[in-house]
Amino acid sequence: MSAAPIRVGVLGAKGKVGRAICEAVEAAPDLELVAQVDTGDRIETFVDTRTQVVVDFTHPDVVMGNLEFLVANGIHAVIGTTGFDESRLATVQSWLDEQPATGVLIAPNFAIGAVLLMRFSAAAARFFDSVEVIELHHPNKADAPSGTAYRTAAMIAEARAEAGVGRSPDATTTELEGARGADVDGVRVHSVRMAGLVAHQEVILGTQGETLTIRHDSIDRNSFAPGVLLGVRQIGSRPGLTVGIDSFLDL
Amino acid sequence: MSAAPIRVGVLGAKGKVGRAICEAVEAAPDLELVAQVDTGDRIETFVDTRTQVVVDFTHPDVVMGNLEFLVANGIHAVIGTTGFDESRLATVQSWLDEQPATGVLIAPNFAIGAVLLMRFSAAAARFFDSVEVIELHHPNKADAPSGTAYRTAAMIAEARAEAGVGRSPDATTTELEGARGADVDGVRVHSVRMAGLVAHQEVILGTQGETLTIRHDSIDRNSFAPGVLLGVRQIGSRPGLTVGIDSFLDL
Amino acid sequence: MSAAPIRVGVLGAKGKVGRAICEAVEAAPDLELVAQVDTGDRIETFVDTRTQVVVDFTHPDVVMGNLEFLVANGIHAVIGTTGFDESRLATVQSWLDEQPATGVLIAPNFAIGAVLLMRFSAAAARFFDSVEVIELHHPNKADAPSGTAYRTAAMIAEARAEAGVGRSPDATTTELEGARGADVDGVRVHSVRMAGLVAHQEVILGTQGETLTIRHDSIDRNSFAPGVLLGVRQIGSRPGLTVGIDSFLDL
Amino acid sequence: MSAAPIRVGVLGAKGKVGRAICEAVEAAPDLELVAQVDTGDRIETFVDTRTQVVVDFTHPDVVMGNLEFLVANGIHAVIGTTGFDESRLATVQSWLDEQPATGVLIAPNFAIGAVLLMRFSAAAARFFDSVEVIELHHPNKADAPSGTAYRTAAMIAEARAEAGVGRSPDATTTELEGARGADVDGVRVHSVRMAGLVAHQEVILGTQGETLTIRHDSIDRNSFAPGVLLGVRQIGSRPGLTVGIDSFLDL
Repeated sequence: MSAAPIRVGVLGAKGKVGRAICEAVEAAPDLELVAQVDTGDRIETFVDTRTQVVVDFTHPDVVMGNLEFLVANGIHAVIGTTGFDESRLATVQSWLDEQPATGVLIAPNFAIGAVLLMRFSAAAARFFDSVEVIELHHPNKADAPSGTAYRTAAMIAEARAEAGVGRSPDATTTELEGARGADVDGVRVHSVRMAGLVAHQEVILGTQGETLTIRHDSIDRNSFAPGVLLGVRQIGSRPGLTVGIDSFLDL
Repeated sequence: MSAAPIRVGVLGAKGKVGRAICEAVEAAPDLELVAQVDTGDRIETFVDTRTQVVVDFTHPDVVMGNLEFLVANGIHAVIGTTGFDESRLATVQSWLDEQPATGVLIAPNFAIGAVLLMRFSAAAARFFDSVEVIELHHPNKADAPSGTAYRTAAMIAEARAEAGVGRSPDATTTELEGARGADVDGVRVHSVRMAGLVAHQEVILGTQGETLTIRHDSIDRNSFAPGVLLGVRQIGSRPGLTVGIDSFLDL
Repeated sequence: MSAAPIRVGVLGAKGKVGRAICEAVEAAPDLELVAQVDTGDRIETFVDTRTQVVVDFTHPDVVMGNLEFLVANGIHAVIGTTGFDESRLATVQSWLDEQPATGVLIAPNFAIGAVLLMRFSAAAARFFDSVEVIELHHPNKADAPSGTAYRTAAMIAEARAEAGVGRSPDATTTELEGARGADVDGVRVHSVRMAGLVAHQEVILGTQGETLTIRHDSIDRNSFAPGVLLGVRQIGSRPGLTVGIDSFLDL
Repeated sequence: MSAAPIRVGVLGAKGKVGRAICEAVEAAPDLELVAQVDTGDRIETFVDTRTQVVVDFTHPDVVMGNLEFLVANGIHAVIGTTGFDESRLATVQSWLDEQPATGVLIAPNFAIGAVLLMRFSAAAARFFDSVEVIELHHPNKADAPSGTAYRTAAMIAEARAEAGVGRSPDATTTELEGARGADVDGVRVHSVRMAGLVAHQEVILGTQGETLTIRHDSIDRNSFAPGVLLGVRQIGSRPGLTVGIDSFLDL
């Protein structure tokens, strides 16, 4: 690997997430941290330092301004900031139309394991009679099931529908209310809330005599870092707009 | 182990369960299978063969007659046949009052692992902020949650109430109906129904930064055999009536 | 689904596996069991009954004769019989060259879950710093690790090598001999042997703050049935020779 | 609970562990944090504030002086500081002989889940044909297996020896070196080292058709807090010297 390191900049560099990304970039031998920008700093620093890729975990109020500048200057961007609706995505696309060599990755979830779990579960879903989802989180979570579990179940249901697979068999005739979980498009989802946990999800698929279980455990908030670095390394060869890190995984 | 083998007889010896027990007894070096009795055979065979312990997996219609004969003849009994209500238990006790050296064990569940799971969960319950139960069974099961899961949750709830421990913390404000499972005396229970499974149960207990998980997996119907042999080996030194194998485990 | 059922025949129909396959075919609404052939029966029965696909779980001594007949008559074949080396595969290919519309699937392992576990593990391997394999089997197994675990580890190692990912980090300086498992091409494999288990395998992959676990549990010998039916349903549209059900899974 | 809160003091209050304990005490409604002492502070503060129980997570160099003062003043102590050998324990005992109403708890491990796992595993060990231990830790750990796994295996082995249970069955004849793990007194122990993990341990016990699995997951360094509070609440009614929190669990 004699290639020169990729020159990386971070926007929102003093925030909790930003600092974690700076550390991760500094620890990677194939990346070089050349610019850190936060509120009050000049964004032109990225041009001055010949930054190749900027990571942005800032705020919905400022991210569009940041992106417009970056794209206009041909700097690739990896964006974890939230708040991108169809309208915002269309605007970003219009900027990129003028800069066809520049790449922008916008992703709501950089945890590679979570993304792989969803993909593998959907890919496997049509080969099994039964499938259910169990998600387990810390007890301060307000919604049940989690957004990730909901999307996972919906993706599984869609894959089964496309393949013409029916509902999971279930002979339950006597149920204590709630025992069989929530029904998301025909897929049962169970939510556990427990002290000592952070964010965990398990998909169980079963057919005659065998089960396949795919489980993701996330135990700290830094689990986005490997996904961000994956984006940083690949965005240079992925011009245009990409939403979600799924397609970068080349599964 | 120079002791003579225990002389064991089996009632219902030609049934599916009975045959499995005969095989298990024959495979145990410290036990000797001396008599097999089924419908149409003479129960006096047990006296003729000086049987010390009889295992009965027969039918509620005949088990009381069997037991009366065994106790009257001072033969210990290990009973897996169902249908013992308070009245029947009182009758058995009255027979035993006349034969104080004889032991009778009547147990609804001989799966040692299931019994241990219940005991350990109840013992641990007061040390953790949170506890939930997940049970997973084959899709032909009619009731949810399983009877074992229901009893496990009730034992856990009782242990926590005795220790003055409150409900598990739960900040859920938005719930898709059923996601948080059934509520058994304040303990959440989740029921999974899945092809490729038989009978499985997991209790998760959590407190700050740590969780303890106790899981029982039963994958065939012969999982009663070790518990029956345990009963056979110990009943000779446990005169009187015992209900459930719990107390034989000396935990 | 107004299509006519696929007409299926079974070779080795009276063997344990053969009977299980006959049952599975009969239970499937889109398949029709039209011929059962075993030792002493006429193989021409398949022609008489206009069988479209034959499943063969017989013996290495007879399978080549069976296959030659089937291909010559344009009948598709799904083969679970073992003993296919390069030479045999070349012979089968030469027969198929004469019958380009006919399909033959030869697979050493029809457990869909096991195949998916291997594929998903290899696909995920390059995204994680660490990966290890744990396989758990009944205590009568002679080899450790299992052949499946060995192949899984080798596939993972190959995927990591291709992606330029190094060995899993490991600071162990003091090891009780064997604690860290066997080393298969740089991937650690641990073998558990335990009463009450059948055949189980788990791959754990970890990076900063998160782990992904993929586990396959096989609890009876009929877990080949869904994979065989998958082969039966697809072989009609897959002319030529296919080895392994992987490619039929369209992952 | 109309009882007055227990008056608690902390020694080493400014250290990382000390601060975590202070927070935990403050969050507990039945405890009151009345004194925080660190290097340079007067230990007499505990007398001035009528402290009932002091928690000491300091250093082997100072802990004996601390303890001598506390016992002499009739203040109960819960000690997580390391370095207590037989000689030190004898000295503490001699101080307590003069103050028979005072209690001192010295424990090397306050993680309740870890202690319960060991106890339950040892209690269950004689009922199962097979038992193995899997421990999983972060990749920076130097020793394999972990000290906890080693002790767990030794306790299991001792319980089985006492009950006359033989080695776990194992038909392995062909082993890739290390696959079957390390042998601790006849119990196999497997060590996984993986990014994304902290400290985890699993004991699997199996007999015909069933397995029992007991697993402890520790994901942060604060998992000592619930065990420390348990000690604080009970030490007042446990005069004399107690080593290890096991006996406080009343299993």
